[in-house]
Amino acid sequence: MLTWGRRVLASQPFSVLLDAELLAFVEGSAELRIPLREELKQQHGFIHGGVVSYAADNALTFAGGSVLGQSVVTSEFKINYVRPALGEFIVARATVLHAGKNQAVCRCDVYVSRAGGESLCATAQGTIVRLGQAAGSPA
Amino acid sequence: MLTWGRRVLASQPFSVLLDAELLAFVEGSAELRIPLREELKQQHGFIHGGVVSYAADNALTFAGGSVLGQSVVTSEFKINYVRPALGEFIVARATVLHAGKNQAVCRCDVYVSRAGGESLCATAQGTIVRLGQAAGSPA
Amino acid sequence: MLTWGRRVLASQPFSVLLDAELLAFVEGSAELRIPLREELKQQHGFIHGGVVSYAADNALTFAGGSVLGQSVVTSEFKINYVRPALGEFIVARATVLHAGKNQAVCRCDVYVSRAGGESLCATAQGTIVRLGQAAGSPA
Amino acid sequence: MLTWGRRVLASQPFSVLLDAELLAFVEGSAELRIPLREELKQQHGFIHGGVVSYAADNALTFAGGSVLGQSVVTSEFKINYVRPALGEFIVARATVLHAGKNQAVCRCDVYVSRAGGESLCATAQGTIVRLGQAAGSPA
Repeated sequence: MLTWGRRVLASQPFSVLLDAELLAFVEGSAELRIPLREELKQQHGFIHGGVVSYAADNALTFAGGSVLGQSVVTSEFKINYVRPALGEFIVARATVLHAGKNQAVCRCDVYVSRAGGESLCATAQGTIVRLGQAAGSPA
Repeated sequence: MLTWGRRVLASQPFSVLLDAELLAFVEGSAELRIPLREELKQQHGFIHGGVVSYAADNALTFAGGSVLGQSVVTSEFKINYVRPALGEFIVARATVLHAGKNQAVCRCDVYVSRAGGESLCATAQGTIVRLGQAAGSPA
Repeated sequence: MLTWGRRVLASQPFSVLLDAELLAFVEGSAELRIPLREELKQQHGFIHGGVVSYAADNALTFAGGSVLGQSVVTSEFKINYVRPALGEFIVARATVLHAGKNQAVCRCDVYVSRAGGESLCATAQGTIVRLGQAAGSPA
Repeated sequence: MLTWGRRVLASQPFSVLLDAELLAFVEGSAELRIPLREELKQQHGFIHGGVVSYAADNALTFAGGSVLGQSVVTSEFKINYVRPALGEFIVARATVLHAGKNQAVCRCDVYVSRAGGESLCATAQGTIVRLGQAAGSPA
């Protein structure tokens, strides 16, 4: 299943641009890591919020896809940033809270890793839907 | 004011990576454009949802910053994707709905432009806060 | 159409408990009014946030139902409170931003009316779905 | 602390109208129960979504207040309904994910209890702020 997930990720040019890596992918959850290089920062030296929200969005989509199948998109999500991200990489861990036939409600915590320690930098919640059931983000 | 906004945008390496351009920046609103190149796509050829949410997040931050001042971050936002984005560029248009002393609630519509026509591809709503008042996304 | 909408509202015991009234109901939008009586307040004398979110949620559902048909539910929504509500009544005005076959993305502004003037007290955004397509709030 | 929390809840006329009861209230979390009587339903016999969102909103506020102090309001929240609620009562369990000086990001799961079993009916995430720091819901 991880092999399949990594193939999907590798077929997303934007995920390749961000060097995103799928660390884990099992039924009901997904874990995505992004190394923090210079190009992903904002003006104060922290990782740009857009990178954090990409990680949350994509991890949510993979978690949803782990129970709904391959053709899924994020229909909507919400993110709260709780701490500026500064460190070596971020890890987005998403899990399925509830899955129906055509959609799954998922949750994702994003951690930043620095000097061996991890701290929460954002938390997200969203709806993943099967393609064709509803409009959605082609994540 | 547009000159100041463009300088801020140019100082964000991630915004430079995405070729984001500030089209308009006045008190109470901001407009951000991103040209749709190959690297910003997902596996089905549409623009990746993470690019759309970056555009919404950053336009929200600029709109909030237009009334709160330079040192602001996105505290939280929510986005609904309504249509896969396929075209030449996306434009995120954000406006301030309500501004207090330390935070602003803003709304953003993201349009995709194709063959001269525009259609809504996502809509977002979020809270922008002054730095130091609360944690937030360093967008 | 307004007659149909009012019949639906009258069949919701909770809406009756809150004295909710449908002021307008046309294709693509709905307007719901709630008079502010003592029982709807919180400890500081303002209208309770739960009443404001009920109004937003229900107006969103009616707006979605105006384009999707009678059997709809709110799948999810997000609300930002921008000002404590103090006055004679609140009015929630919801409109459809995008409608597909099975779901509609809607937006709602809630105003409080006091001494003849209106001010924004909350703004919301959410997804309305046809019953049976997905789980959702039985609003 | 539970005594203090119950006194606050009892001073909210709307919470009294809904017969809300604070089951637990410790630093970092709160648990709110609402018995499901006829008046809280919608037209299909399920509990109205507005009651579920009230429970989530208020539990989030209490959780935030448990770390920020008494004078707090919900600034914003998002809720996903995952299952129509039918049963004897709902319980909203909220926890603090991250607390700063002036705001806390909290999460809440709402369960419906029926015939001795519990199932998730909604999940929410939001920001609680100290009064005076920002506008917010007077929950």
